[in-house]
Amino acid sequence: MTVGNVSREQISSKNNAQIKQIRKLRGRAERDQRGLFYVEGIRQVAEAIQLGAEIETLIVAPELLRSEFAHDLVERETAGGSDSLLVSADVFQTISEREHPHGLSAVMRQRWESLAEITLTSQSLWIGLDAVADPGNLGTILRTADAVGADGAILIGKTTDPYDPSAVRASMGAIFSQRLVRASNEDLTDWVEEQAVQVVGTSPDAPLDYQAARYDGPILLLMGSERHGLPPELIALCDPLVSLPMAGRSDSLNLSVATGVMLYEIFNQRRRGG
Amino acid sequence: MTVGNVSREQISSKNNAQIKQIRKLRGRAERDQRGLFYVEGIRQVAEAIQLGAEIETLIVAPELLRSEFAHDLVERETAGGSDSLLVSADVFQTISEREHPHGLSAVMRQRWESLAEITLTSQSLWIGLDAVADPGNLGTILRTADAVGADGAILIGKTTDPYDPSAVRASMGAIFSQRLVRASNEDLTDWVEEQAVQVVGTSPDAPLDYQAARYDGPILLLMGSERHGLPPELIALCDPLVSLPMAGRSDSLNLSVATGVMLYEIFNQRRRGG
Repeated sequence: MTVGNVSREQISSKNNAQIKQIRKLRGRAERDQRGLFYVEGIRQVAEAIQLGAEIETLIVAPELLRSEFAHDLVERETAGGSDSLLVSADVFQTISEREHPHGLSAVMRQRWESLAEITLTSQSLWIGLDAVADPGNLGTILRTADAVGADGAILIGKTTDPYDPSAVRASMGAIFSQRLVRASNEDLTDWVEEQAVQVVGTSPDAPLDYQAARYDGPILLLMGSERHGLPPELIALCDPLVSLPMAGRSDSLNLSVATGVMLYEIFNQRRRGG
Repeated sequence: MTVGNVSREQISSKNNAQIKQIRKLRGRAERDQRGLFYVEGIRQVAEAIQLGAEIETLIVAPELLRSEFAHDLVERETAGGSDSLLVSADVFQTISEREHPHGLSAVMRQRWESLAEITLTSQSLWIGLDAVADPGNLGTILRTADAVGADGAILIGKTTDPYDPSAVRASMGAIFSQRLVRASNEDLTDWVEEQAVQVVGTSPDAPLDYQAARYDGPILLLMGSERHGLPPELIALCDPLVSLPMAGRSDSLNLSVATGVMLYEIFNQRRRGG
């Protein structure tokens, strides 16, 4: 079996030790411990490579991989020194997230930074997410952050894993371009006190309309959990604290939508200002 | 077993014919054919009743139902003539969407209107959704529509079912307050031609920035599918056709987010105008 310039046996046992290790990456504990995650799809893997993601292993199912573009990609990457596994279609299906997989996926290395690595400029825009529970929301927020040219996300406290397969999918590639920082509530508070950063937060009770505030200089937009919003200790950091007006019987928006509306207001003010 | 003022036997077989009928409502064909849908949770059922939803059957698992509020609600509804089924905890689990159900759900009647029933005023705001595939997106869009005081959604062509359990959940009650219309592409086109309505659409290629357009009078905001956006025949109806600016490597937003940003722009212009 030849894929790219690699000629060797393919794995045909679902119980192969390496295949088991890949399947285990569905679980957060395993991802956290090994610092790896799983990315599926030709476009997704190509985009990750283009954005400089570090590939641990390419997984290729020759029977399923029909795209010439993908064959070239595998050839180039393996020539460049990337590890690859050739697997049967059946084995690929056991690790795949899809009903009809296209035969290419990869295990990649997670990328994390610390608060100390952040250098703020007047155009900096970071999103701080506290206790966000749904990986789909987190991925969608990264996608919007990317669209408005934000720098990255600071994941506070128990916020879900951006390397969860649902978050990776929803991010539509933003997982590879947005910077990611993990911080405790306390560390974030210390960092905010040391920095000249405008901390913007939302609360349904805030008297200030989100469009009446002026968003200037380096900004950290704090958003809270789907159910409870921001906790008091993070609300205390916010200036301004704003609310999104509502007209109907609703008293809340979906978290991804609320974050999107806030990010576009900040982005719009910057566009007008610049 | 007594719940409310009802004293009778509870269903303890998972194979009971009525229970099977309820489980079948997970499938769209069954929902379409019977015009019914399934709603789970104390808050959700209470909200539906408050907003005038028509209950076909309440499903009550006395062993699970600990809330006094819920007991009162069941008592009031059954006294008012609603049908109810008492079921064992095991049976409730077989129809439930949740890992830890609270013992109250309902089968309710779908509510549909036709284009002919829409009367437009200067404040009317409808959202037309073409070929939207993900029920979670649809429910989230209804939730945002409700928040900005929109009238309802016109579901065009193959748009997914708003009564899908995922859509109902994501709508956070908006499924009961937003009006719902189904229309073919052709019927919508005819309707638009007869009405004095501003049809607003988005396209990544549109030269007009979404903030540079003026949204006036009765509005129909058209949004297309997650993958392909609006088809040419619907784009042809749009005036203005606008684009959402983006700064990063992204060339698209999540559909719920894009719809949210558009709806808030329309809402903000109306707030300023009024």
